[in-house]
Amino acid sequence: MQQVSLSPDSGVPLVDQIVHAIRGQIDDRLLRPGARLAAIRQFAELHGVSRFTVVEAYDRLVAQGYLQSRRGSGFYVAHRSVPERTPERVPLEPGAFDAAWLMRQALDAGSEGLRASAGWLPRSWLDEEGLRRQLRAILRNEDSNLSDYGRPQGYLPLREHLPFRLAESGIAAQPSQIVLTHGATQALDMAIHHFVRRGDAVLVDDPGYFSLFGCLRLHGARLIGVPWTPEGPDTAELERLAAEHKPKVYFTQSVLHNPTGACLSPANAYRILQCAERHDFHIVEDDAYCDLHPGQTTRLAALDHLDRVVYIGSFSKTLSGNLRSGFVAARPDIADALTDIKVLTSLATPQAVEEVVYRMLTEGHYRKYVERLRTRLGEATARALRMLERVGLTPFIAPQGGVFIWARMPGLDDAVALAASAARESIILAPGTLFRPQSQASPLIRFNVVYANDVRLERFLARALDKLA
Amino acid sequence: MQQVSLSPDSGVPLVDQIVHAIRGQIDDRLLRPGARLAAIRQFAELHGVSRFTVVEAYDRLVAQGYLQSRRGSGFYVAHRSVPERTPERVPLEPGAFDAAWLMRQALDAGSEGLRASAGWLPRSWLDEEGLRRQLRAILRNEDSNLSDYGRPQGYLPLREHLPFRLAESGIAAQPSQIVLTHGATQALDMAIHHFVRRGDAVLVDDPGYFSLFGCLRLHGARLIGVPWTPEGPDTAELERLAAEHKPKVYFTQSVLHNPTGACLSPANAYRILQCAERHDFHIVEDDAYCDLHPGQTTRLAALDHLDRVVYIGSFSKTLSGNLRSGFVAARPDIADALTDIKVLTSLATPQAVEEVVYRMLTEGHYRKYVERLRTRLGEATARALRMLERVGLTPFIAPQGGVFIWARMPGLDDAVALAASAARESIILAPGTLFRPQSQASPLIRFNVVYANDVRLERFLARALDKLA
Repeated sequence: MQQVSLSPDSGVPLVDQIVHAIRGQIDDRLLRPGARLAAIRQFAELHGVSRFTVVEAYDRLVAQGYLQSRRGSGFYVAHRSVPERTPERVPLEPGAFDAAWLMRQALDAGSEGLRASAGWLPRSWLDEEGLRRQLRAILRNEDSNLSDYGRPQGYLPLREHLPFRLAESGIAAQPSQIVLTHGATQALDMAIHHFVRRGDAVLVDDPGYFSLFGCLRLHGARLIGVPWTPEGPDTAELERLAAEHKPKVYFTQSVLHNPTGACLSPANAYRILQCAERHDFHIVEDDAYCDLHPGQTTRLAALDHLDRVVYIGSFSKTLSGNLRSGFVAARPDIADALTDIKVLTSLATPQAVEEVVYRMLTEGHYRKYVERLRTRLGEATARALRMLERVGLTPFIAPQGGVFIWARMPGLDDAVALAASAARESIILAPGTLFRPQSQASPLIRFNVVYANDVRLERFLARALDKLA
Repeated sequence: MQQVSLSPDSGVPLVDQIVHAIRGQIDDRLLRPGARLAAIRQFAELHGVSRFTVVEAYDRLVAQGYLQSRRGSGFYVAHRSVPERTPERVPLEPGAFDAAWLMRQALDAGSEGLRASAGWLPRSWLDEEGLRRQLRAILRNEDSNLSDYGRPQGYLPLREHLPFRLAESGIAAQPSQIVLTHGATQALDMAIHHFVRRGDAVLVDDPGYFSLFGCLRLHGARLIGVPWTPEGPDTAELERLAAEHKPKVYFTQSVLHNPTGACLSPANAYRILQCAERHDFHIVEDDAYCDLHPGQTTRLAALDHLDRVVYIGSFSKTLSGNLRSGFVAARPDIADALTDIKVLTSLATPQAVEEVVYRMLTEGHYRKYVERLRTRLGEATARALRMLERVGLTPFIAPQGGVFIWARMPGLDDAVALAASAARESIILAPGTLFRPQSQASPLIRFNVVYANDVRLERFLARALDKLA
């Protein structure tokens, strides 16, 4: 190997300088695979650095795959096949639209992509500084546990805190009824494991949350769509479908329903619970958007007192999608069964993450922060509604809050081809068919109100409507 | 409310003092539920503090459930039902032993409990300081993403790094073939989703990993146990069972097998792959203990080049069980399908956690740290083997490394009653029946070599054997 030139006064640690220099020689093929490096003592003497510095540099190069260590014989340049770069997958063809595809598109979209299909807020809206502050606090706290497995039901202080939050929505729960999860998505998967067997009929909202549909299909459920109105499900249809299909469970979203943004009316809530009683089915109420609703609204779990209703909450929309934290609240026997399922399918949830969530919720700023989010969302919704009106789309309702507008594209039977042509311009749209239990055609599109205010979307839609006219 | 006494010079922030004082008044019933608190301005003037301080204190009390805020009317003491404390569940009766029970026992065991059943290392053995250091580095890095959802397959730099590590075990994989998961447990659940339908025959090691069995049962699989020898599965039996049951998949552990600690011999490995070829089944190779093996050993994934073999790895044993990080490496089409399953069942994995893992692996100390762990484990194993010999148990093998000794209790047909009486003394044992696919009786017990060196265990076993004699 060639001598490496080091600058002890440059401010860059010597270890980093050595790592960088040797990597450079390997990348430039000055050091060939199989070549033996100078022994540690020799390198140290030659460069006037400590042996410890050389050991650390060589170790790091081993960890990075540049060197191999052969016991008793020294360090050699590794034979490495260079991994391909950015190996994310190519977008699928139109026609291959499905739930997993859409999620992956939205998650994979680079900084260029316009994620008008996203079900969440942009990173810049979230309190990343608050997350960093609370993580720092945890790092200062010797008692915080970063390495040992967490408890099966999750971090106890968070489970003791959540009942106070739930009480604000009228939901009475004890900490023992709460199981913390990797986001609402895992909570839904656990509920499906508990209630659903392959071939079972399961009631879902039509339209409804496509990722839930995907997960239900994965478990082999037969999806029965209950038509959704601006006030919740069509309860006459619910009654008829329950009688016909004898479902064990109905998955629904009462607050800021995905994709329509509508909320359940109290009268509808009561009829749903009566119907569940009559036909003996359970209800899984997914309340992932709860904190984004600006006022009081009805939850099935509050009326039913967590008897037939299993309630799911999430911190992904207001705190962090990255950290994956959510929870389920249920009757004690169901909470118990869900804990077993959690342990068998993922063992535990990260206590360190749950400590961050707990601190974010209890350090006093959360309420104000969420109020600010609601105000901003209200403004974004109003602007997006005006934009959609300008280009000529018709919203299903004008939502009271939340992230979504569900709007109809005129002159179309199905929005899939439109979404495919949008994807070619790096605009990710969520065509209505994804939100239908049998992937029926739909002329509607779900828009994220924040991303919808990007001028590229208005231009794209205007051009598309011009072509249709 | 009573006036609060504040000490501005005490070093305790005023907000904390106010929160503490008001909580005290509420807990002591000096402030009753429904009572109205002093208005913010009034409180501030009375105590000579800024209004901002009072707002923050009240907000925090609202977040903690002590106060309620009524818009336009002020702050009131909340009507709160006090949640029960430490609501973890009571231990089950003997006879109700099952996989979920055992995991929950081991995870729930308080500081008093002796977790001789644990499948992991004690927290004090892990590099918690290293985790904190890397988390601090992430907090300093503006580019680290704490709030936005991660990529579907997981954090790219970690996926680009893992191929170098896998290459050391002879496994060739591209980053696109790697999917990061919430620990090995989620990876197993994803593989089950992919390969198994309710009623399908699935081959497993007998004895084998009980949490895998629990998850397979949850998915409705029919478990077919392949007898396990000190050199891996009995391949003649494997051949016979494959012909009889036509399984689609065989779940096995080639390195430091759980519970026996044995490793697959190269000759056996070859025969297994031939058998898989002949009977057209896949193999899921769970290598959760890989880094704890002291030498070179055979992996099916290395021989097969990730064709029929799906390979699962984990960082739970060497870095942190808490953070829940693992991965799966598979043929491109299978990796693709597993990514879809991951997205549908848990959306994404926490990128912040994966950044910590990546930094732990690449900052150069990991190799030495793991070597230290191996040395300590070797010593603990030797000591535990001597202890078991002293009390009169017979080990299945003397393991070459890892966490487990699998040992036979003389004079017993089944170790369950023994485990139940141990549980009454807060000693958690893992009786052999848990590791058998049909929960058959077993006189063997799996010991964690670290916890086995607690003198309480030796005393308990000696007493138990006295009684049996």
